[in-house]
Amino acid sequence: MSALGISGLAHLFGILSIILLLVWLLHYREGIDYDSDDGFQVFNVHPLMMFLGFIFLVGEAVMAFQTVPRERHMGKFVHMTLHLIALILGIVGLCAVFKFHNMRNIDDIYSLHSWIGIGTFCLFGLQWLFGFIVFVFPGAQDATRRKVRPWHKASGRVLLLMAICAAETGLMEKSGFLNLKPYQRETNLVNFTGLTILLFGVFVNMSVDFR
Amino acid sequence: MSALGISGLAHLFGILSIILLLVWLLHYREGIDYDSDDGFQVFNVHPLMMFLGFIFLVGEAVMAFQTVPRERHMGKFVHMTLHLIALILGIVGLCAVFKFHNMRNIDDIYSLHSWIGIGTFCLFGLQWLFGFIVFVFPGAQDATRRKVRPWHKASGRVLLLMAICAAETGLMEKSGFLNLKPYQRETNLVNFTGLTILLFGVFVNMSVDFR
Repeated sequence: MSALGISGLAHLFGILSIILLLVWLLHYREGIDYDSDDGFQVFNVHPLMMFLGFIFLVGEAVMAFQTVPRERHMGKFVHMTLHLIALILGIVGLCAVFKFHNMRNIDDIYSLHSWIGIGTFCLFGLQWLFGFIVFVFPGAQDATRRKVRPWHKASGRVLLLMAICAAETGLMEKSGFLNLKPYQRETNLVNFTGLTILLFGVFVNMSVDFR
Repeated sequence: MSALGISGLAHLFGILSIILLLVWLLHYREGIDYDSDDGFQVFNVHPLMMFLGFIFLVGEAVMAFQTVPRERHMGKFVHMTLHLIALILGIVGLCAVFKFHNMRNIDDIYSLHSWIGIGTFCLFGLQWLFGFIVFVFPGAQDATRRKVRPWHKASGRVLLLMAICAAETGLMEKSGFLNLKPYQRETNLVNFTGLTILLFGVFVNMSVDFR
């Protein structure tokens, strides 16, 4: 299989994940509305934004050097911009879950999911800032860039691993709260969503090895 | 930081994870005994074996080319043998959870954790078999080996990512069943165990980039 085939599979599983997430949140759950009085509609902004930002766009940004036609410069610009949008969507998604907790008097940041998620978000912010300073503005000397690049790349891979863990633990946590029963339709839907998200991560990860 | 520093951190978090897991299972939970009449003691074999086999030993096997002094041949032997032990421990761990389900009439393989876990186990078995045939016995031609090696390596990285997801979702699932409350001591212990396991995965993953 070629590098293009691998990133093709990644796109496929990414789009499948979005579709499954939307079916889940709109059809099986309460719908999505940040300004609603129904706390659950506010909460549902969280999984969608976190996936769209922190997994889908980040994955696309990782693959940008390969999928965006030509010139390294353009690839870098897309890579940086997608990550910036990811950060903004991530902030919206985080605000949504805190608003939901506030509306229903639920404690913040006590579960393994939230610890992994918050940790990933903070490290991601640092990675973006550091990458921006070194590679874009003001930009470091060539020798420094060469030294930093492998670290930037390795950290990015690791952050994707962490983001995927955050997503999977989040789906598990929500399944627990909903008390989903074995083999129920919604249980299977959530599981398949988890699998497509995992496979998206797997193929984005592989696309780095075969760039 | 040097490659040695990274794998040093990986060993550290691996050992920390084992300690935290043992404190959890022996002190907070029911203890560990495959032959017990208490289903929970049987169940507790599962997290310990899966972590020891599928994460700790696999991680050590990935780092073996670096930590085992000299000769590629020796590194390969350690790499293969550790993975074989991992497979055996994994089988014991899986048997334990099926035995537990049987003892208490619980459905098998319906949660996202179990789907990820079973998927990882099967692919891992295939990866071991394929690696054994190509690199050890009967062993393929040099040209084939050169072609297969990057795929073997990329698949290995992806399997580690999947195994870490399986561990984290497993901890989330168990926290849900135990109905662990916010900021309880056991909640924090489980979360820290999840974090040390994640960090073990992170540093093993990075050690590959800086080999």
